Amino acid sequence: MNVTIDCLQYCNWSGRIFDQMAKGALDAVHVTICYHEDFRETVSNMSQWHRLFEAYPERIVHGRTAADVILAQQSQRTAVFFGFQNCSPIESDIGLVEVCHQLGARFMQLSYNNQSLLASGCYEEVDSGITRMGRQVIAEMNRVGLVVDMSHSGERSTLEAIEASARPIAITHANPASWHDALRNKSDTVIKALAESGGMIGFSLYPHHLRDGSECSLQSFCRMVADAADLIGIDHIGIGSDLCQVPIPASSA
Amino acid sequence: MNVTIDCLQYCNWSGRIFDQMAKGALDAVHVTICYHEDFRETVSNMSQWHRLFEAYPERIVHGRTAADVILAQQSQRTAVFFGFQNCSPIESDIGLVEVCHQLGARFMQLSYNNQSLLASGCYEEVDSGITRMGRQVIAEMNRVGLVVDMSHSGERSTLEAIEASARPIAITHANPASWHDALRNKSDTVIKALAESGGMIGFSLYPHHLRDGSECSLQSFCRMVADAADLIGIDHIGIGSDLCQVPIPASSA
Repeated sequence: MNVTIDCLQYCNWSGRIFDQMAKGALDAVHVTICYHEDFRETVSNMSQWHRLFEAYPERIVHGRTAADVILAQQSQRTAVFFGFQNCSPIESDIGLVEVCHQLGARFMQLSYNNQSLLASGCYEEVDSGITRMGRQVIAEMNRVGLVVDMSHSGERSTLEAIEASARPIAITHANPASWHDALRNKSDTVIKALAESGGMIGFSLYPHHLRDGSECSLQSFCRMVADAADLIGIDHIGIGSDLCQVPIPASSA
Repeated sequence: MNVTIDCLQYCNWSGRIFDQMAKGALDAVHVTICYHEDFRETVSNMSQWHRLFEAYPERIVHGRTAADVILAQQSQRTAVFFGFQNCSPIESDIGLVEVCHQLGARFMQLSYNNQSLLASGCYEEVDSGITRMGRQVIAEMNRVGLVVDMSHSGERSTLEAIEASARPIAITHANPASWHDALRNKSDTVIKALAESGGMIGFSLYPHHLRDGSECSLQSFCRMVADAADLIGIDHIGIGSDLCQVPIPASSA
């Protein structure tokens, strides 16, 4: 079966947005619930979503597994999956990885643009790779089922995360640097290593990541997607900050 | 089917204790994971249990539902259910009720011995009953499935909690004050109101709650249990800080 998933989204969530998602027959969305918040602040962001789940039960459902995507599709709703764009919610406590997963977190970036306790961000002058704590946290994320997302991390950190992770990782929102050279976009080396390890990349519609910025043409963007598909295969691509159609194997449902 | 449940227990948890529970064929235990800790501290206590679950998978399993008690029995393990002896983990944030429930909390006392934000403790000179926030929190606990426990609360607060709660409540560890007059023990008025609303009381082996303290005879204790059973029926009693045999209806399994 086919499902429609938005690989990463952030916005001022409201009933109006949920109506738009329903009109678009969006089955699942990975929503950002943290950029720099610590654990307690992230929990408050989760509480806000709990109130939205109560207020809009006919539109959204808290997504935790692939089965929830199917459930959402069958009930004409959208499954909302929580993700962190940084590792700030786990502070310096590896025990919080399991806690956050129990609270529904399914994606965590090891860094935003700057150096974190776990990895280097893509805006740092020196990318020192995955830290000692980072390697422990990757193993713990693998254990509990929290996806490693390297969208905002540097080249070396990203390659080392792909190598260190026993499970495939994700780059939920970035484009090939060969199409548009930006610190946030990814080299073909990274994109190929990602795909070879079973991971996926979601393309980004954020203007800074686009050739010609906001003037980027639909044709140019689609050409980039087609070229990436030629490079790594259709199974490893999606679209972040927008919709994509992805096939779900029956065994994952 | 019959299962053996310890209605409330605290101790210095270790592999040796888990071995003892296995020898006693204990199917489930309600463990205290908080007395006065705030939310963040309580989460750390949960993390300690997560490490125990990883270290002793052949002995214990995290209990969340009645089905987990059956699973534990069938696999010769003990299901560990988290409980709070105070409302300190939710601080002044009602959103934390659902968060704590998602993390596995299944029992929460509305107060320990002192006044809390929700209710009066049994050692306060004035028991002012369930507070305004307390009524909101009881409704939220009813909604998410967190059991109201009034073991340490005062008479008026306990009667009002029984009245306010749409679901049966628990007094997990206390004895009849008619048997031993202590501030922590409960009047027949409370015990009868509890049973009439479908709730349960677990008896306590804590010396301060016993007639003759540590010199309490087994005969005296058993006489108290039998008298309580005569007063409110066998379906409404258990034993806290010790083992009890309780029947589980097939429909709850």
